[in-house]
Amino acid sequence: MKRTQLLTTADITREEVDFLINEAEKMRKKGTTNDLKGKVVATLFFEPSTRTRLSFESAAQRVGASVISVADASTTSTKKGETLADTIRVFDKLADLIVMRQSVPGATAEAAKFTNKPIINGGDGANQHPSQALLDMLTMHRECGKIDGLTIGFVGDLKFSRTTHSLLYLLCQYKVQIVFITPDALKIPSEYLDLLKKHGVPYTEEKDLEKHIPSLDVLYMTRVQQERFADPAEYAKLKGCYVLNAAMVKKGKPSLRVMHPLPRVDEITTDVDDLPQAAYFRQVENGLYMRMALLKYLMS
Amino acid sequence: MKRTQLLTTADITREEVDFLINEAEKMRKKGTTNDLKGKVVATLFFEPSTRTRLSFESAAQRVGASVISVADASTTSTKKGETLADTIRVFDKLADLIVMRQSVPGATAEAAKFTNKPIINGGDGANQHPSQALLDMLTMHRECGKIDGLTIGFVGDLKFSRTTHSLLYLLCQYKVQIVFITPDALKIPSEYLDLLKKHGVPYTEEKDLEKHIPSLDVLYMTRVQQERFADPAEYAKLKGCYVLNAAMVKKGKPSLRVMHPLPRVDEITTDVDDLPQAAYFRQVENGLYMRMALLKYLMS
Amino acid sequence: MKRTQLLTTADITREEVDFLINEAEKMRKKGTTNDLKGKVVATLFFEPSTRTRLSFESAAQRVGASVISVADASTTSTKKGETLADTIRVFDKLADLIVMRQSVPGATAEAAKFTNKPIINGGDGANQHPSQALLDMLTMHRECGKIDGLTIGFVGDLKFSRTTHSLLYLLCQYKVQIVFITPDALKIPSEYLDLLKKHGVPYTEEKDLEKHIPSLDVLYMTRVQQERFADPAEYAKLKGCYVLNAAMVKKGKPSLRVMHPLPRVDEITTDVDDLPQAAYFRQVENGLYMRMALLKYLMS
Repeated sequence: MKRTQLLTTADITREEVDFLINEAEKMRKKGTTNDLKGKVVATLFFEPSTRTRLSFESAAQRVGASVISVADASTTSTKKGETLADTIRVFDKLADLIVMRQSVPGATAEAAKFTNKPIINGGDGANQHPSQALLDMLTMHRECGKIDGLTIGFVGDLKFSRTTHSLLYLLCQYKVQIVFITPDALKIPSEYLDLLKKHGVPYTEEKDLEKHIPSLDVLYMTRVQQERFADPAEYAKLKGCYVLNAAMVKKGKPSLRVMHPLPRVDEITTDVDDLPQAAYFRQVENGLYMRMALLKYLMS
Repeated sequence: MKRTQLLTTADITREEVDFLINEAEKMRKKGTTNDLKGKVVATLFFEPSTRTRLSFESAAQRVGASVISVADASTTSTKKGETLADTIRVFDKLADLIVMRQSVPGATAEAAKFTNKPIINGGDGANQHPSQALLDMLTMHRECGKIDGLTIGFVGDLKFSRTTHSLLYLLCQYKVQIVFITPDALKIPSEYLDLLKKHGVPYTEEKDLEKHIPSLDVLYMTRVQQERFADPAEYAKLKGCYVLNAAMVKKGKPSLRVMHPLPRVDEITTDVDDLPQAAYFRQVENGLYMRMALLKYLMS
Repeated sequence: MKRTQLLTTADITREEVDFLINEAEKMRKKGTTNDLKGKVVATLFFEPSTRTRLSFESAAQRVGASVISVADASTTSTKKGETLADTIRVFDKLADLIVMRQSVPGATAEAAKFTNKPIINGGDGANQHPSQALLDMLTMHRECGKIDGLTIGFVGDLKFSRTTHSLLYLLCQYKVQIVFITPDALKIPSEYLDLLKKHGVPYTEEKDLEKHIPSLDVLYMTRVQQERFADPAEYAKLKGCYVLNAAMVKKGKPSLRVMHPLPRVDEITTDVDDLPQAAYFRQVENGLYMRMALLKYLMS
């Protein structure tokens, strides 16, 4: 079960997920530790993402590590014509663990070939965002007390949502039911349906959000972006159906939990924020504990 | 006297100012402490300000805290359409204290509604900059040995100077005399005169800097910007009057102290820099100790 | 031998170099120390350089210091019209040691007049980069077991290479032989030849890289940039001669070591990377240890 690279959720076992959830809950109790004292974590964001970067930097410092940071690749040697391989070989010498975000799918896995240091994929385009998937698992576990037995609805743009894609690799190892709720143009790619079939996870593909809320334990919202539609009329028609408001949430079970990877724009109205069902800001806090657990796990 | 938010000087009591001056002087003696070990301070600068940001970051680390930093809002989720409220709710989860600078007056106070964590207004447009006002009080106290009894001249653009505005809320609680020295176009807004009247603080409004120097204990310079004048001839006429040089300083009391919030451009000539009267670089150092004291005060 | 400023290699003695190599080797063994606990190092990069900045920041944290950082001068008060002298006077108050990079030759030395705090020139245009020269000395010493007796070839654009220029001031104090290999347009400036003559260091100026490889102990590659040639035909002709590949390396001594300040573009082909001769990534790691040693040396 020992690993030093976290590049994709596709190779994470249920045993590891359960272990990391448990470790993250320990971090919540401790608040801060000295586990990584004297270690230096590099956050290399070739695509800016303040939220993810600072979550890792806060987590690193809370487990006792120091941080060196590139918030924006436009200030790096890449501009001088250096290859990604060379850049990674350099950071391999400067840091004890590398967190890397890239806009190009697969770029972090490619980079990982050039370092023996622990490395985390902090998001590579529409491909994978494994630490997000793990914090989502932690959130479901904490909010619902378990993951086996849950009915989980994914809503919105499931064609391009790396959050959803990453998460399905983990969920398919649990006894869950999945409801995909999307417009026709933004359906989940068939490879993920194949994955669920292979693991015997029941799922349905739906269009109507409001109708399916009562059956859900977790409602995972993502944003539907206008620019993804060829036909503006189609967008105008569907738009309202994928905006979640307090009245809709109240039609669900009292134990329903609403999640969102953030940032949100208008796909959840603010009257949801103060309901106990709104788990999306607690999700951010869970991210801190999961990343503390991950950093310790990969480096020890 | 306990608070967790520092948004404006308007609600700071004399008792608090005296307490913080005393705490800052203790920090000067200690140099570094472990008071905030294990805590994470977020510096969120939606408007860049290297000087203020690094002063807070140096102070935070000198009291034992770690730092996560956004030097420039252009790399944040705000660009993706996230509201300020959501951004603050996220940082509320990642950090133990938030320092925020905004270009919009009132934005930090608005943001503070969405967090229970300690928060400091690091400057909101032309409105308030409370940590600057407190370091100015520390500087006057240290340089002059007291604040009661001082005659303080404010010079330059007092219409838009948030430094002056913030400071007057504190000074009006002391037995001081104020001399405002400005061109007609840049007079101090009447609400601040009303504040002084209400507290029985004597003041005069003047135009001629050189004439009033001999009466002053503290000369607080600010910059007069050409673009603030409708009539270029008016600017040309006044310009020279508001440039302070060594000869002018020497006409004042030997104990006169010259302050400036920095950066300066040309409103103080460099021949002043080496005079004992020049307190503006010591002001920067005082900022470090006051911010160390503030961070500890708000978090304990 | 005690100093607090590292502005140029021109005033560094052989005694100091040997001392710092020894200190750096101690840092390699220790990994991390608490030597600078409670100290704050400012990295002020008025010209962006991710590699050098993060090397200093990693080094500073590995000796126990904290860091405040300006990755890009475009976010500083310089834009508001502040002079470099004032900027340095401010950082003098905020930090315990300043690392500064500037695009203007001599700018760091000029800035150093305005601070009593230790200061390191992190590169000033085509002029000097003393910490790079020192890490290069460490690398030669470690890779070859000694510096006296080495024959060192410098290859490429030696007209503008501050790395080469800085290094020659140190090498001329050792019993070495130098081979300069350049196109006519990019020869080493005569002042450096005069330096070698003054110290009695034998050198030759050559054009043909391949021919001279067998005589070398160290091959220090730099990049030849097309834009430096008035005549494109001249560039086209020489280009290939200054690209080092594995076959060429294998014609040298087995103990030959290839160095490069990085980033490389295509002047060393990637088939060299896995040869034991390729020292350029180990050079990066040596940079960390040398900078740890330097920070401690200047502050204690």
